[in-house]
Amino acid sequence: MSPVIDDSHDPALASWVESANAEGSDFPPQNLPFAVFRRAGSDEAWRGGVAIGEQIVDLGAAAQAGLFEGLAGEALALASGPTLNPLMAAGRGHWRALRQALSHALRRGAADRARLEPLLLPQAAAEYTLPARIGDYTDFYTSVHHATNVGRLFRPDHPLLPNYKWVPIGYHGRSSSIVVSGTGVRRPRGQVMPPDAEQPVLAASRRLDFELELGLFVGPGNRLGEPVSVTEAEAHLFGVCLLDDWSARDLQAWEYQPLGPFLAKNFATTISPWVVTLEALAPFRVGAARRPAGDPAPLPYLDSPALAEVGAVDLRLAVELQTPAMRARGEGGAVISRTSWRHAYWTMAQLVAHHSVNGCNLQPGDLLGTGTLSGPTPGEAGALIELSVGGKRPVALPGGEARTFLEDGDCVVLRGWCEAPGWRRIGLGECRGTVLPAGR
Amino acid sequence: MSPVIDDSHDPALASWVESANAEGSDFPPQNLPFAVFRRAGSDEAWRGGVAIGEQIVDLGAAAQAGLFEGLAGEALALASGPTLNPLMAAGRGHWRALRQALSHALRRGAADRARLEPLLLPQAAAEYTLPARIGDYTDFYTSVHHATNVGRLFRPDHPLLPNYKWVPIGYHGRSSSIVVSGTGVRRPRGQVMPPDAEQPVLAASRRLDFELELGLFVGPGNRLGEPVSVTEAEAHLFGVCLLDDWSARDLQAWEYQPLGPFLAKNFATTISPWVVTLEALAPFRVGAARRPAGDPAPLPYLDSPALAEVGAVDLRLAVELQTPAMRARGEGGAVISRTSWRHAYWTMAQLVAHHSVNGCNLQPGDLLGTGTLSGPTPGEAGALIELSVGGKRPVALPGGEARTFLEDGDCVVLRGWCEAPGWRRIGLGECRGTVLPAGR
Repeated sequence: MSPVIDDSHDPALASWVESANAEGSDFPPQNLPFAVFRRAGSDEAWRGGVAIGEQIVDLGAAAQAGLFEGLAGEALALASGPTLNPLMAAGRGHWRALRQALSHALRRGAADRARLEPLLLPQAAAEYTLPARIGDYTDFYTSVHHATNVGRLFRPDHPLLPNYKWVPIGYHGRSSSIVVSGTGVRRPRGQVMPPDAEQPVLAASRRLDFELELGLFVGPGNRLGEPVSVTEAEAHLFGVCLLDDWSARDLQAWEYQPLGPFLAKNFATTISPWVVTLEALAPFRVGAARRPAGDPAPLPYLDSPALAEVGAVDLRLAVELQTPAMRARGEGGAVISRTSWRHAYWTMAQLVAHHSVNGCNLQPGDLLGTGTLSGPTPGEAGALIELSVGGKRPVALPGGEARTFLEDGDCVVLRGWCEAPGWRRIGLGECRGTVLPAGR
Repeated sequence: MSPVIDDSHDPALASWVESANAEGSDFPPQNLPFAVFRRAGSDEAWRGGVAIGEQIVDLGAAAQAGLFEGLAGEALALASGPTLNPLMAAGRGHWRALRQALSHALRRGAADRARLEPLLLPQAAAEYTLPARIGDYTDFYTSVHHATNVGRLFRPDHPLLPNYKWVPIGYHGRSSSIVVSGTGVRRPRGQVMPPDAEQPVLAASRRLDFELELGLFVGPGNRLGEPVSVTEAEAHLFGVCLLDDWSARDLQAWEYQPLGPFLAKNFATTISPWVVTLEALAPFRVGAARRPAGDPAPLPYLDSPALAEVGAVDLRLAVELQTPAMRARGEGGAVISRTSWRHAYWTMAQLVAHHSVNGCNLQPGDLLGTGTLSGPTPGEAGALIELSVGGKRPVALPGGEARTFLEDGDCVVLRGWCEAPGWRRIGLGECRGTVLPAGR
């Protein structure tokens, strides 16, 4: 935990890519997030890219052109292929060198402009794939508000289990069904036990939900048997994306005991194409959420003085829901939830330290989900099951519509961004998925 | 589910590799299992190999030599690299062609002997790595006896949950920490809640256990959103290995609610190097375990007439435990459990059909664990927590020793084999791991 603020964060910094200087842009020159892209509809090779305003810097072409030298040049080469795993593996020295080099090359007046300008592609002309080959995907449960809200529905008598305030609860998710923003999400079929029924039936889920999460990409990682300490943990995190952990609540209720969620979740997980580095988030670091009086202090392997000061990030989050009727009326989605990552009970450093304390090895490109990031008030809930109180209170939408759970054709868009007085806005772009009807 | 028995299974078949004809051999010419190997201690490239008696057929060298033509030649090329994923992806046509070609080439009197003999390496001179790049590892819970035995310890009031006889319960495990037989297993540290304590402590596990399982490697697999039917399911399974799902019971008891096991399991999973194909197991197919009177019939998506006839395999299993004292006395391990896969409540076809019914995509090289394969009687339990009844009744060992859970230096060896009158024995080799002391 040592967020470095340098001239790459300077809010006065402007780019010769003019769209990056627009006030509301997610991708000013202070951001410089990574994705893997190609020209839409082409069969070009996938390669790394960096967002600047409405453009993408083609890192594959930049590497071929030998744009940078030294450490930055090495990092550029590592980011030029079809996955960002090599860059993620390289660690902070390379990440920072490439950030610095890109920041300088994209500034107004930069000598590199002439070499760089031909390497830009408009984002509107690009398509994306997953930014990394994700070996293992772990999902955590870091919002005590989510855990309490959902726990109350599944276990009214003991919503928050005794281990919650000691253990950063997590479980392993499915890697193969992680898809990039924009991919349709087919409503899953599965076993459900209807209320008062005597036996389950195979049916299309009727309680399909989203979950508002962030995903953290692992950097260098650790060898099997060698834990990462909480103070070293953030050096093993490359960056952050948006993550929608689609969930079929009716499947989940019937299957989750005793080994946890399985088919209720593993049919699809959507992530945003853009990965915002921890470096870009440095100005927005805040202290970890204060534990209420009476809560235990974290055990020493999960504790560090820096957590109280800069363990969290005030990363704002919003969920938009667009129904087919809204689309037909030419309307965008309605915002149904707003919150911030800063309310999480466990910080990203604690997740890494806990995950590896038993010797479990984290590998470059592994993905850690935060779990649903519900905030402390009802309007900050990150899933419909919370917003609709288990389907009992429909969420009102514009035009007289309402939702308890998702209907076919509904489009869910997650957005995330940082903003604070004196700094340029840093955005994560969007994470979008539309519900397709159940198959055969 | 269409086990084909052909001349490659003929018990009269003998090989010009004489060690393959020895009666107790795991690897007669009727078996032909696959591994990925190289010369021990070398920095040679990893490549596929097939076991025959005490030798390995080097498939990398065989492919270079152009040993086979047609489909068998294609399959050989797919098996010649550092993982068997390409062969697994190719499907039954290729698997059978390669099996037939190898069976013919290894028979006594085969014309290919002169070309093949230089391509053999003694197993004693080889080292192994994982047979596949395992994208996702799923662990199931297919033994109702294990579920009941363990459930009784964790939840005395309701050992077997209401969903068990309807849902083939499974969860996602950790891919990164899957290691090949022979790798040391470091005792994990983690949070445990001592009896009667008010707060948990970070400590080395004192209730370290093994779990006797089989692993199934996925073949071609399915696309996201396209379920595999129970009748087509076995065409998506390449073969079977031994699997030890090491478990820290004290970590598990404290962490597993509500999202399932995590650090209690993800520090290590050991598999045997050899993968025995479903083809090799064809003569040992038996009907799925009979459900006791009163148990529900599987839902239609999990049911097929063939299950009752040939859905299971009578694959015998044994666990050996060798303590440091036994090793010091020059003794091998003591057998502490014997059982058979045939007792499983859910068949392999049911696992594939269930896993994909929601559209979840299975990919070539994915691994499906059966869960602990405890049989119906106490001596058939596949884990120490069952054998010692939750640590209350130590398991007696030769020389006056006893164990409730594993101690440092203990070596656990899993073995599996098929045997039946009129057929050659088909073995899986061994899956071995020794407990190393906890680290810092």
